[in-house]
Parts: sequence; structure tokens; C-alpha cells
Amino acid sequence: MSAEVGEVLVGKKPTASYIQAILTAAARGVSEVVLKARGRNISKAVDVSQLALRIVLKDFEVSNVSIGSEEVAGGRRVSTIEIRMRKKA
Amino acid sequence: MSAEVGEVLVGKKPTASYIQAILTAAARGVSEVVLKARGRNISKAVDVSQLALRIVLKDFEVSNVSIGSEEVAGGRRVSTIEIRMRKKA
Repeated sequence: MSAEVGEVLVGKKPTASYIQAILTAAARGVSEVVLKARGRNISKAVDVSQLALRIVLKDFEVSNVSIGSEEVAGGRRVSTIEIRMRKKA
Repeated sequence: MSAEVGEVLVGKKPTASYIQAILTAAARGVSEVVLKARGRNISKAVDVSQLALRIVLKDFEVSNVSIGSEEVAGGRRVSTIEIRMRKKA
């Protein structure tokens, strides 16, 4: 089993683009996939994780979800999420 | 310390409505607040948690975040999130 991690930043593209990125990571044999998103894209990141677990990463499971916030330009704060999915033991 | 839990369903209302609901729960002396949301409202639930921790629940911290999906009318699936915040030990 590879110890390599696939990191996918979920932004404004359609959900399918991120599923494709995860497929590519899966083809590389990664043992962990990390999805990161901010603001409005947080909902999309959760959608991507659920879809990926159902159709691409069938032998993976969510190992950790963490949320937080970051200061961006203008002192405004934006919420963040990090979803870690690992190959089942 | 109360063992009571305040549950807040984050939906279509403005963020401030949910902060108000949390304020009400905090005034009741709850030791745990649980935010639940589905679909597009997931991003808002994370915003509500971050704002609440900064301005209302200053002695609380995120104790668990779980994500999943549910089948809704028409066999469509919708993503879900549950954010638990607990009074710091």
C-alpha cells in the first residue's frame, strides 16, 4: 500500500472535475485523499467526498473532518473544511 | 454544568437567525450545541459554527464533525453535516 496522499482543492469547477482529479489520484494508488475547500465551496467538497466514496474510492472511508476559518483580504474571515479519506484497514 | 444539548437545524434563514438560536441555547446553559444541515446549507452551518465560537460560545470548541448523505424524494441523494461543539473541559 502506498503512503502517498492525493490533495484536491475544491473550488468553482463542476463537481465532476474533482471526481476526475480523485480518479487520477486513485489510479496513482494513493492511500489517502484530502479534500480542501473554503466558503461557499464547502458544500461542494462534502458532495464530492460522498460521490467519490460511492463510485471511485469504494475501499476508502472518511477518517477525519476538520473545520476552521482563515482571514482573507480586507480582514474578512472565510470558513474552511478539510476532509480526509483513507483506505480501509 | 448542564448535560443539556442544544440542537440547531441550519436551513435557508440568514446566518444571524441561527446565531440567535445558539444565544438562546447558551442562555439556557447547555453544555453542547449540535448544528445540522443538508445540501447547500452545509457551508452556512460551518459559517455559523465559526461565528458562534468567536462571539457566543467562547468557552466551547468543536468536538466532532461528521458528514454523510441521505436519500430524499425522487431517489436523489443529499449531503449532510453534523457539527458538535462542547464546553471546554
